Amino acid sequence: MKVPVLAINYKTYNTSFGVKAVEIAKSAEKAAREYGVEVIVIPPATEVRKLVEVVSIPVYIQHADPYEFGAYTGWLPIVALKDIGVKGVLINHSEHRLRLDEIVALVEKAKKYDLETLVCADTPIAAAAVSAIRPTAIAVEPPELIGTGIAVSKAKPEVITGTVERVREVNREVILLTGAGISTAEDVEAAIKLGTAGVLVASAIMKAQNPEKVIIDMASAAARAYTKR
Amino acid sequence: MKVPVLAINYKTYNTSFGVKAVEIAKSAEKAAREYGVEVIVIPPATEVRKLVEVVSIPVYIQHADPYEFGAYTGWLPIVALKDIGVKGVLINHSEHRLRLDEIVALVEKAKKYDLETLVCADTPIAAAAVSAIRPTAIAVEPPELIGTGIAVSKAKPEVITGTVERVREVNREVILLTGAGISTAEDVEAAIKLGTAGVLVASAIMKAQNPEKVIIDMASAAARAYTKR
Amino acid sequence: MKVPVLAINYKTYNTSFGVKAVEIAKSAEKAAREYGVEVIVIPPATEVRKLVEVVSIPVYIQHADPYEFGAYTGWLPIVALKDIGVKGVLINHSEHRLRLDEIVALVEKAKKYDLETLVCADTPIAAAAVSAIRPTAIAVEPPELIGTGIAVSKAKPEVITGTVERVREVNREVILLTGAGISTAEDVEAAIKLGTAGVLVASAIMKAQNPEKVIIDMASAAARAYTKR
Amino acid sequence: MKVPVLAINYKTYNTSFGVKAVEIAKSAEKAAREYGVEVIVIPPATEVRKLVEVVSIPVYIQHADPYEFGAYTGWLPIVALKDIGVKGVLINHSEHRLRLDEIVALVEKAKKYDLETLVCADTPIAAAAVSAIRPTAIAVEPPELIGTGIAVSKAKPEVITGTVERVREVNREVILLTGAGISTAEDVEAAIKLGTAGVLVASAIMKAQNPEKVIIDMASAAARAYTKR
Repeated sequence: MKVPVLAINYKTYNTSFGVKAVEIAKSAEKAAREYGVEVIVIPPATEVRKLVEVVSIPVYIQHADPYEFGAYTGWLPIVALKDIGVKGVLINHSEHRLRLDEIVALVEKAKKYDLETLVCADTPIAAAAVSAIRPTAIAVEPPELIGTGIAVSKAKPEVITGTVERVREVNREVILLTGAGISTAEDVEAAIKLGTAGVLVASAIMKAQNPEKVIIDMASAAARAYTKR
Repeated sequence: MKVPVLAINYKTYNTSFGVKAVEIAKSAEKAAREYGVEVIVIPPATEVRKLVEVVSIPVYIQHADPYEFGAYTGWLPIVALKDIGVKGVLINHSEHRLRLDEIVALVEKAKKYDLETLVCADTPIAAAAVSAIRPTAIAVEPPELIGTGIAVSKAKPEVITGTVERVREVNREVILLTGAGISTAEDVEAAIKLGTAGVLVASAIMKAQNPEKVIIDMASAAARAYTKR
Repeated sequence: MKVPVLAINYKTYNTSFGVKAVEIAKSAEKAAREYGVEVIVIPPATEVRKLVEVVSIPVYIQHADPYEFGAYTGWLPIVALKDIGVKGVLINHSEHRLRLDEIVALVEKAKKYDLETLVCADTPIAAAAVSAIRPTAIAVEPPELIGTGIAVSKAKPEVITGTVERVREVNREVILLTGAGISTAEDVEAAIKLGTAGVLVASAIMKAQNPEKVIIDMASAAARAYTKR
Repeated sequence: MKVPVLAINYKTYNTSFGVKAVEIAKSAEKAAREYGVEVIVIPPATEVRKLVEVVSIPVYIQHADPYEFGAYTGWLPIVALKDIGVKGVLINHSEHRLRLDEIVALVEKAKKYDLETLVCADTPIAAAAVSAIRPTAIAVEPPELIGTGIAVSKAKPEVITGTVERVREVNREVILLTGAGISTAEDVEAAIKLGTAGVLVASAIMKAQNPEKVIIDMASAAARAYTKR
């Protein structure tokens, strides 16, 4: 994972599927190229193959299961992702929280299969715990702000600075991202100023009238703020 | 769902993804055309779009979640399936057991979105309970036989006849299938003779040297046994 | 289980533990004796031994797990309840929903160990499904009314009558109770008039200024309404 | 928590309930007094009140839920434990694994209510993650050895030393215990020599012909090994 990062969690809106999903991925690719920012798209499982086919930026998946190939009806073994062309896995989003042993197993297996991992944590303490597992990146997202349009970087900057502090005592290398309520280019800038390497965004892009504009604005803000750092 | 039925649960073997997944679906389509049997393919979530694109037989998915579009990171709202072209949903497989309220909600939402439902049950009592929810079909699968190659129709025929009896007291219309350990054309025949309308098969096809041969054998057996009934 | 029934779900309020838990059980016993109603107390796991010791009315537990004795750290095998003197188990409350296979296993094991079962269902369809499993009793509780003080018997009488209708197609013997929002003696009366054999109550008693008064009022209403039926 | 520690996980054997549960607790108290070792008994939820009444050594519970008082049918809010006299909570045993956010919330709430926490972890990495949450103690238990009678301290000493190493990079104060397969006094000694402060034991005591003898042997071995350290 390069930095700075604009990771787009598609979630499962109507725009997260089909034609719209492809359009947003193409806008993301355009922004990545223009601003040199690591823009990552994270669609639902049914859409990953298509997105991998149409864009060359990193495509993550929203969840995978810590299994090898086998008899796991209805689950998605992480081993299957490599061939599909997925670059990484979002793990433990607050809408899909996992057991500690599952998080450990997913990060370990991702390493085995050369996949990146972006693990969500909802508090500085949870982020510190996750950092001991040594994933590629951690996004701290206070769940009470997710989807509100109230950016954590504005409403609770101490969650971000507290996370940076607690995590750095345990792990000096893991990439840290800010999530929850990120709505504007200013929120992205604030997230980077507070010491993280970018953001995890969802509704602000997926529910936008003009997603491309939001993506471009956020990517350029990320690039700008990161060089000033 | 037409009858008789040969439903192929891809599970998540290495053959369940990519090129092999497509080949097996094409063999299934060929068998369906030749023998007039309802052959259903049930791939992992990442493969459904591709299979819907390349074959015209019914494609089901191995699981979906009882949600509308929205903020459900890492889940798959059943509402999204319709546009993808999926015909139905496998629900409550013994490798992915669900809460009763989830089964009810999935069957209700599937009806709303005009999707078919194939609900698994591991005992005659569970099958009777499921039949009160009125899904399209029920597959009874004693979990201790799944993947063993020991067909339930041979080893525990009383589970099948018991299921038929208990279910028919509650629901005279639901389609009943036999699952667990189905390995040969004879097992398919036995399943139909015991009063069900077909089978749910996985490893016998997915792990076969020559999957097409197994599919053809099973489909022809199903057609033959069903007309004799 | 005798009828009519006043089942008191203690939940886990501060009044659900210790001295208060005992007082409420004694009030329940008094009401049972006075009005000939089956008053059942359903305390948290830590309180069952004490309540069994101090009252002779039926004590149920709020949940148990479908296990024999063994290595199940942190769970409560249903087999252990018999010796403790618990009379039955509340199963699948909307605050503790279970998988279908767990409900089936619990009802089967309860029969094996001669324990009664009161299974909750949140819709008429779920209640019909549960009735096929043949528990001792079913309580229908629309979760959106639980704890609101708005009685289902007043706000959604069609849920009750719909449940009675759907269940009776499947099972003519199971005892049916009304739950969710039951607050007054009138609500109890209405529940019985709509065709159920009593109620499952929680906050109206556990959070009352004078729990004994509420219990006495509800028990006498149940007795009265049931004889008129 | 004092050290060295002999923590007895009762699990849910037939000896874990009733008269036998009390006897074992009394043996534990005797051993604690004789050898100055911290012997902790961890019975099922239904037995905690009784044990707190009859012994003065620490009684933990096998699980609690991260809730305040409220409407949580079938769960056990950690807030309720304080009044009961429970001293601490076993968290995340491999037979009852929890989500990361639940572990964090339980440890935080335990601190709020002045309860001790003993969190299980199945690998050195998981133990390091848990140590960042700062519980009172951590027991590392490779699940494949639990209940086997093959002590981790003998079969996989590198798991213990690896845990000590990984944890101490993150947290210098948390008490570390060895679990899984601990069967004899020698196993206890080995666990302490490898750098942990004691053991978490279950079947070797709960299924013993003479539990008191095993407890005495283990407590004396712990005392001896710990002074030599």
